[in-house]
Amino acid sequence: MLRLSKLFVRTLRDDPSDAEVPSHRLLVRAGYIRRAAPGGYTWLPLGWRVLRKVEDIVRQEMDAMGAQEVHFPALLPRDVYEATGRWTEYGDNLFRLKDRKGADFLLGPTHEEMFTLLVKDMYSSYKDLPVSLYQIQTKYRDEARPRAGLLRGREFLMKDSYSFDIDDDALAVSYAQHRDAYERIFARLQLPYVIVKAMSGAMGGSMSEEFLAPIEVGEDTFVRCSACDYSANTEAVTTSSPAADSNTYDASSTIATPNCPTIATLVDLLNANHPRTDRSWEAHDTLKNVVLRLRQPDGSTETLVIGVPGDREVDMKRIEAQLSPAEVEPLDEEGFAQHRTLIRGYIGPQVLGTTSTSGIRYLVDPSVVHGSAWVTGANTKDTHVIHLVHGRDFTADGTIEAVEVAAGDPCPNCSAPLEIARGIEIGHVFQLGRKYADKLGLTVLDHNGKQVVVTMGSYGIGVSRAVASIAEVFHDDIGLKWPRAIAPADVHVVVTGKNGDDITIAGEKIAVELEAQGLDVLIDDRNGVSPGVKFKDAELIGIPTILVVGKSLAEGNVELRDRHTGTNEAIPVADAVTRVVALARSGQ
Amino acid sequence: MLRLSKLFVRTLRDDPSDAEVPSHRLLVRAGYIRRAAPGGYTWLPLGWRVLRKVEDIVRQEMDAMGAQEVHFPALLPRDVYEATGRWTEYGDNLFRLKDRKGADFLLGPTHEEMFTLLVKDMYSSYKDLPVSLYQIQTKYRDEARPRAGLLRGREFLMKDSYSFDIDDDALAVSYAQHRDAYERIFARLQLPYVIVKAMSGAMGGSMSEEFLAPIEVGEDTFVRCSACDYSANTEAVTTSSPAADSNTYDASSTIATPNCPTIATLVDLLNANHPRTDRSWEAHDTLKNVVLRLRQPDGSTETLVIGVPGDREVDMKRIEAQLSPAEVEPLDEEGFAQHRTLIRGYIGPQVLGTTSTSGIRYLVDPSVVHGSAWVTGANTKDTHVIHLVHGRDFTADGTIEAVEVAAGDPCPNCSAPLEIARGIEIGHVFQLGRKYADKLGLTVLDHNGKQVVVTMGSYGIGVSRAVASIAEVFHDDIGLKWPRAIAPADVHVVVTGKNGDDITIAGEKIAVELEAQGLDVLIDDRNGVSPGVKFKDAELIGIPTILVVGKSLAEGNVELRDRHTGTNEAIPVADAVTRVVALARSGQ
Repeated sequence: MLRLSKLFVRTLRDDPSDAEVPSHRLLVRAGYIRRAAPGGYTWLPLGWRVLRKVEDIVRQEMDAMGAQEVHFPALLPRDVYEATGRWTEYGDNLFRLKDRKGADFLLGPTHEEMFTLLVKDMYSSYKDLPVSLYQIQTKYRDEARPRAGLLRGREFLMKDSYSFDIDDDALAVSYAQHRDAYERIFARLQLPYVIVKAMSGAMGGSMSEEFLAPIEVGEDTFVRCSACDYSANTEAVTTSSPAADSNTYDASSTIATPNCPTIATLVDLLNANHPRTDRSWEAHDTLKNVVLRLRQPDGSTETLVIGVPGDREVDMKRIEAQLSPAEVEPLDEEGFAQHRTLIRGYIGPQVLGTTSTSGIRYLVDPSVVHGSAWVTGANTKDTHVIHLVHGRDFTADGTIEAVEVAAGDPCPNCSAPLEIARGIEIGHVFQLGRKYADKLGLTVLDHNGKQVVVTMGSYGIGVSRAVASIAEVFHDDIGLKWPRAIAPADVHVVVTGKNGDDITIAGEKIAVELEAQGLDVLIDDRNGVSPGVKFKDAELIGIPTILVVGKSLAEGNVELRDRHTGTNEAIPVADAVTRVVALARSGQ
Repeated sequence: MLRLSKLFVRTLRDDPSDAEVPSHRLLVRAGYIRRAAPGGYTWLPLGWRVLRKVEDIVRQEMDAMGAQEVHFPALLPRDVYEATGRWTEYGDNLFRLKDRKGADFLLGPTHEEMFTLLVKDMYSSYKDLPVSLYQIQTKYRDEARPRAGLLRGREFLMKDSYSFDIDDDALAVSYAQHRDAYERIFARLQLPYVIVKAMSGAMGGSMSEEFLAPIEVGEDTFVRCSACDYSANTEAVTTSSPAADSNTYDASSTIATPNCPTIATLVDLLNANHPRTDRSWEAHDTLKNVVLRLRQPDGSTETLVIGVPGDREVDMKRIEAQLSPAEVEPLDEEGFAQHRTLIRGYIGPQVLGTTSTSGIRYLVDPSVVHGSAWVTGANTKDTHVIHLVHGRDFTADGTIEAVEVAAGDPCPNCSAPLEIARGIEIGHVFQLGRKYADKLGLTVLDHNGKQVVVTMGSYGIGVSRAVASIAEVFHDDIGLKWPRAIAPADVHVVVTGKNGDDITIAGEKIAVELEAQGLDVLIDDRNGVSPGVKFKDAELIGIPTILVVGKSLAEGNVELRDRHTGTNEAIPVADAVTRVVALARSGQ
C-alpha cells in the first residue's frame, strides 16, 4: 500500500517556472518527476510506477509479436559508428567522450549498428531468419533545445527494435507485424494516434511511417485528407507536380521597381505601371528566392538558393528533412558579403545554378513548373524582371519541397483539400533496407548457398515520451487523469479523519480489504492535513477512482469519485470494496 | 514458451579468448552475454531473463523494507559533483564529457549528491524522516583494467540506496534494516556471503561493511578469525598495536654490508660477522623502507616512504585504501633520480621524515613499535646500521597499515590465528554520516525547531555482478547450474525426435501442459540437431530441471535430469508434468 504519510512526494501549488506544456507542469506539480539536468529528469516513486507500467505494456506486446528482448550498453565505441558514417553524420546531436586511454566513445542515440553486428556475429543462414530483436533502454541525444519536460529530453527511455529478413517481401511482413503491435500498444495506453507517411531522414531506407498523437503542443505538423486515407507528416508531403506550362509568354524584360521592399508593394507597382491585360498581377506571379547556408556534419558549408512562389511561406523543417544530415539556416550578413552576385531583395535565378557564373546551387519548389513565367529580381538594386520563363530564361538544379503546406492545399492523392494539425511523434516504423547490413557486412547464405545481404527494419517507441503524451491527453486544469492501465494505483482512498478516530479506522479497513483483492491502493493517511488539501492532491495526482471516507460515514456512506467524468456518488460503506474492485477490473 | 528453434542464441564449443574466469567463459559460451565494448556487455535473451529475475528479487526486498524506488539520469551536470569535491577526487575513474554548448557533464558512478539534493528539494522537517530511497540503474566507471566479464565492467547495473535520518541512532536503525534486507536478498539468490568490516574509501563516513561472496577469482581478500566473530576485508584490518618496546639496546653502529642484495644475504652476513649473543639475526630484525609515489586526483604527486619489518610483504591495496583518493605506485627510476638522498637498497629512516633534511614523509607499519631496534640501510652504498631504535635514533611521521595480512596472523580482537580467503564484493552497506548533507546543505527542522544536518547511509548491490557471482558459484566444467529462483526457465524440455514424429508430438504436448501450469518452459525443438548436441547445450545453458523426451518414450518413459545433482531418472510419461511442476514449485 502506498501511504501518502510516507510516500516520497511533495505536491506543488505553483507551476514550475520552466514548464511550457501541461504535461511538464502537472507531472512536476503532482510529484511524478523532478528536473535533474538540462533535458534530464528524475523519476519519483509515482512517476516511476507509471513509466514501468507503460514499459510493461510495450514489452508484453513486443514479446507477443515474437520479438526477443536484449540489452546493449549505452556507452559505445566510435569505430562501429564510424563504419556507417554516423559518427560524423549525427553532428552535434551525438554525445561524444574519451576514456582514460583517449579512446573515442559515444552515448548511443539509437543502436542500428550494434544490432546489425550482433546478428552478424550470431547468425549465418536464411534458416535463422526472420528475427526481430528489441531493447528498452536509455538513449542519449545532445538536443540543441531540450524542451517540454519529457517530450524532448537529452536522456530518455526508448524501445527500439530491429527486424532482419532475407528479402523485401519478408521485410514487409515484419514491418506489418510491428505496425500492428504498435497499434495494440497505443490502444492499451489509450493514446490516440494517427499513422502518417514520414521522412526517412538520416537513417536512409524507404517506407517509413510515424505514429503521431494529435496534440497541439506537439512539434510535428501533419496533414490528413478530408476525402481519401492520405496522411503524412508535412515534412514528407510530396506535392503533385503540375503539368509543364505550355503557354507562350512575352520575352522577359527588366523594369524599374524603386521603393518595393515587400511582395505586396511590388505587386502594387506592377499593377500600376505594367498592368496585365488578362487579369491583375498577384503575389503568386512572383518568384521569391531564399538564400540558405547548409552545414554538413563534417563542418563544410554550402550556399543554396531555393525559389518558391511569392505567396507561399518557406517551411524550414520540410527543407531540412530533405537535406538531412545537413543543418540549414538562413544565410547571414557575413555570408552575403562573400557573394557579391546576390543583391538582397533583388535576387533572380538568371545568375544562379551550379553551371552559372556564381556556381551557387539553385533548387525550386515543384510548384515552379517548367514553362511557367515569373516576376523576380533582376540582380540589380531597384530592378525586377517580368516574363522570366523557367526553362527558357533560367534553369534550376532540381526541385525540393519547400513551401509550407497549408490547410486546404490539394491532397497529393485525390486533390481534395487537406486538413492540417499538430502532433507528438510517439512511434516510428521504418523499412531501413540494406544500408546498415551493406556497410557492416551482414550477409547470410540463401536457399541456393549464395551470400545475400540481409534487409532490415527499425522501429521505435519513446517510452518516457509516451508518459508525457498520455498526460497531455488526460488532464484538466486541476490535475492529471490517468487511464487505468497505467495509473500509479487503482484507487486513491482519501481519509479525512484524525489518527485513531472512526473515520480513520474505517478508511484503513477498506484500504486493507481493497489491497487483499489485489488492487494497488494509495491511501491519504496524513494526519493534520485538511480535507480540502487532500481532495486537491487527489485531483492533481489523478488516479481514476477516488474513494472518500469522511463525514458521511456517520450516515453509513462513503463517496466514490470518478476523476475522468467528475461524478461524485454516495454509496453505502458496505458496498465500497465491491464497487471499487469492479471498477478496477472493468479496466475503465 | 522459449523455443530453441527461434531463440536468439548460439552456444559456442570453444572458450572466448579473452575470458579469464569461469562465469565470463560460460556466460558467453552458453549465449547469455556478448562483449560489445571494453568493459561493456550485451545481454542476450537468456541473460536478460536472469538479470531481470535478480533485479526483481532485489526490488521486492527493498520495497518490503520500506525503501522507495526512484530513478535518476546517468548524465549529470558537473556542478553538483564539484560541490562535494568528487568531480576531482574520482580522478580517471570518472567518465567526463561536454555537451554541444561546452558545459561539463559526467556519467554517474554513484548518486550520493543527486539523492542528497533531491531530499533537500522535497523535505524540510524531522517529521519527513526517516526515508530510504533507491534506484536500480546503469552506472559508469572508467576502470583502468576492466576484467573478468561482468565482474568488473565499465557499464554495469547497480542498485544503490540511501537512507536519511535525523540522528546517529536512527541511522543505525536504517543501516540495520538495509543489512537485513541484503541478507534476505543474497539468501534468495542462494549466493553465499561473508559480512566483513570494510574501508570507507573515498566516500568518507564511518561504519562500513561489505558482503563478500567467498570465491577464489574475487579481487578482494578478507580475513576471518578462527575463534571469535571477527571478519574484515584485509584493507580494513587494523592490527593490534603491540606495546612500546622497553628494552635497552646498544648504541647504533654502522657496518659494512657488501654483496647483500637481499634481506636473506644481509641476515647471513649479520650472523657471520656480527653475531648476536641471545639468538641469531632474523629477517624480522630488519627494517625495509619502501618508496612510493602518491598521485592525487588533481595531478599533484608526493614521494612517500613506508617502513615495514623485512620479513613481511607490502600490501599495496591496503596502503592505497588508506591513502585514497590518491593513487599509489612504486617510485620509478626518474623519481629516484630526483632524490639523491635515497640510495636504493640502503635506505634508512635517519634521513627521512617531514622534519628531516630530505623532507620526505615517512610512515611505518604499526608493527614497527616505538622503542624497537632495527637493522636498516645507512643511506650509503654497501652499508647498513644495526641497533637503530625507533624514537631514539629515528622518528616517523605516523603509522599506516602496510604489511600483507597472512593466514595465522593474530586476530585484532582475540589474538587467535586468522584465516584468509578471497571474495567478490556483492554488496556494501555504509554509514556515510553527514559528509554529503553538510556539503550540500541538507538540513531539516528538528523537534525544537532548530535546523540540523541530516545523517545518511549508502547501500549498494551490483546487480549485473551478482549474475556473474552466482555463475561463479553454480557451474561445473560442462556448464552453468542456475539456482531455480533466477534460472531463465523452470524446465528445459529436450525433444530428440524429428518434425512430426511421435517423440516430437509428445514433447510438444508436455511442454504446452507445463506452460499451462504456469511454468516458464524452454523447449529444444530444433529439427536436425543430434540428441548429443542437444544434451550438451542443455548442460551448458544450465536450467536446473531437464526433461528428455526421447527414445524411451517407446517404453512409456521420459527422463528427468537434475542439473545440480547430475541424477537421471526414468519416469512414466504420464507423471512427467506432475513431477516437473512439483520440482518447480518446491523452489529447489
